[in-house]
Amino acid sequence: MGNDTNKKEHLLVIFYQDLLEGIRDVVEQKFPNANLTIYRLGRAAVPKDILAKVTVVCTFGYFPDPSDVPNLKLVHFFNAGIDHALGQPLIAQTTIPITNSAGVAGPPMAEWTVMNWLTAAKGYDHMREAQRQHRWDRSTQYINVHDQVGKHVGILGYGSIGRQIGRLASALGMTVHAYTATSRVTPLSRKDTSFIIPGTGDPEGSVPSSWHHGTDKASLHDFLALSLDHLVILLPRTPQTWHLLGVEEFKILSDNCSAKNSGRRPFVTSISRGSVIDQEALVAALKSGQLSGAALDVTDPEPLPPDNELWDMPNVHISPHMSAVGVEYIPRSLDVLKMNIERLEKGEALINEFTRGKWH
Amino acid sequence: MGNDTNKKEHLLVIFYQDLLEGIRDVVEQKFPNANLTIYRLGRAAVPKDILAKVTVVCTFGYFPDPSDVPNLKLVHFFNAGIDHALGQPLIAQTTIPITNSAGVAGPPMAEWTVMNWLTAAKGYDHMREAQRQHRWDRSTQYINVHDQVGKHVGILGYGSIGRQIGRLASALGMTVHAYTATSRVTPLSRKDTSFIIPGTGDPEGSVPSSWHHGTDKASLHDFLALSLDHLVILLPRTPQTWHLLGVEEFKILSDNCSAKNSGRRPFVTSISRGSVIDQEALVAALKSGQLSGAALDVTDPEPLPPDNELWDMPNVHISPHMSAVGVEYIPRSLDVLKMNIERLEKGEALINEFTRGKWH
Repeated sequence: MGNDTNKKEHLLVIFYQDLLEGIRDVVEQKFPNANLTIYRLGRAAVPKDILAKVTVVCTFGYFPDPSDVPNLKLVHFFNAGIDHALGQPLIAQTTIPITNSAGVAGPPMAEWTVMNWLTAAKGYDHMREAQRQHRWDRSTQYINVHDQVGKHVGILGYGSIGRQIGRLASALGMTVHAYTATSRVTPLSRKDTSFIIPGTGDPEGSVPSSWHHGTDKASLHDFLALSLDHLVILLPRTPQTWHLLGVEEFKILSDNCSAKNSGRRPFVTSISRGSVIDQEALVAALKSGQLSGAALDVTDPEPLPPDNELWDMPNVHISPHMSAVGVEYIPRSLDVLKMNIERLEKGEALINEFTRGKWH
Repeated sequence: MGNDTNKKEHLLVIFYQDLLEGIRDVVEQKFPNANLTIYRLGRAAVPKDILAKVTVVCTFGYFPDPSDVPNLKLVHFFNAGIDHALGQPLIAQTTIPITNSAGVAGPPMAEWTVMNWLTAAKGYDHMREAQRQHRWDRSTQYINVHDQVGKHVGILGYGSIGRQIGRLASALGMTVHAYTATSRVTPLSRKDTSFIIPGTGDPEGSVPSSWHHGTDKASLHDFLALSLDHLVILLPRTPQTWHLLGVEEFKILSDNCSAKNSGRRPFVTSISRGSVIDQEALVAALKSGQLSGAALDVTDPEPLPPDNELWDMPNVHISPHMSAVGVEYIPRSLDVLKMNIERLEKGEALINEFTRGKWH
């Protein structure tokens, strides 16, 4: 911390909560050449004389008045999705570069996704319950246990998270189908331009066996008809994605499932924004057996009300919007910021820069 | 079925249990050119006039008297591990080729392994309990959630199952270390010669970043000192592997864990035979905190007695020797048999042939 005028940047880091033990050290180690101010959101206002010096803000959701931060040249979000920020004057009324933490959440969210596929398919909950009862139970509870080999997954939104899911799915022996808003026909367009954690993801876009795109219903419906056993929903919250998956879409998905002949139906994983799904239609599709199950890290609304029927539905796994959570998150996000501060100094293009107005 | 003398082979298939619906059809479809006899083990003796004609036995554990099966030319096991069969006269006192179902269990057992890694690391049980209580709980239960990126896994026994675990581990961003009984220095020696389900495994042995071997304690100890976060035990039951992992081994593993500085300790996954582990030493290592947890699909003895303290230990996941179970198992095993009947006819080397007396 302190205010060393020889240091190039003044970095203001604002956390939602008190810092986890050790995180302050991590921040200081990563930015030895910056003045650092670390605050907890809402605990106390950041003094205006500090704001006046700040060159970089790093936050989940802190938005100073633009006139208070005349030297600000970068806003870095710990979040991957930043729809909550788009209406804020700092974002909407300035052209200050914005970067997000896309790529940081790929591994934990992909692990969360595959974990739920496997626990749902392999009778994990039954196994744990039998263990609680000290029972060596090889009963017919396991009669429908199956693996993922040969299954088809459609990934709706093939960004950083989708790519790590694709990587894992391919390793599981699955076939991956990617869906993006814009066309990705050329090799260059298929590359991942976001931050990539080494050894993860699909940097070249070589994993999918087919690519699909479009922002219209017809394109989406063609994709959902691809004989998918799994659908993973990774679309951001935009006016265009509101209730994009509804009655008709779940029907198309179910009617074309590759495992249909063996009596199985598709499994839906939703991990971006709850509002992309028409939740009543989802409940109906689960009740009718059109879908075999769902893993929901996001709901509509959040928190999911205690009396919502999803809580008690068989084959529905709910977690409280925490699929990205992990001890690795903040350090990795700071790595992105560190790269971008270096790029700013060199005048290079930023990584993970958010383009205002684009459907990512 | 029937007894068509124009058919080349007479296949006797013996199941432990009554056939699952549809499996009889699967068998008949896969072997249209064979006479088929399908029996349930122990329900009734197979008539001697049928045994006299049988050329192929396919079973989990049925051993006719060798003198009753003069035309037998192949015994195919649905099992991957066949230690239970080695003392039987049919196996010990003949040279009839034996094949096992190695490779068939790779995907389900690898999925079981990774499922337990993820549920242990990501607070899955807490998430499910909160769901049962209709609670949107973002509490500190998740404070130690972590992912697998950068972790090191040692795979003790790099056969078909180990290779699919290696494949998944690599996709997760982990570093894989392989251990085999014999040296695997040349590219040829690193190939998987077992049955491989397309799109799975590590056919060329290209996944591990390091290979290790030996049947002596010193070699094993060097392997355990490789800074492993995960140890996966896949060794068969032999006199040499009895209690191979004990007090000293768990200490070496724990003392050298790569995540030691962050306070984590290794996680042990045991999925071949319970007797490879000195179970008392395992319990002690879990109690002392030398190990962070264990996933045990096999125990010593089996079934694990109801009063065994492992059942109630935190961070221990127990399943009743069912990690290989799945609806795909029998059809895949029959694919191996089908390949081998064709190879027998052509006089080619069999796949998955068990070499009597070798530590695989």
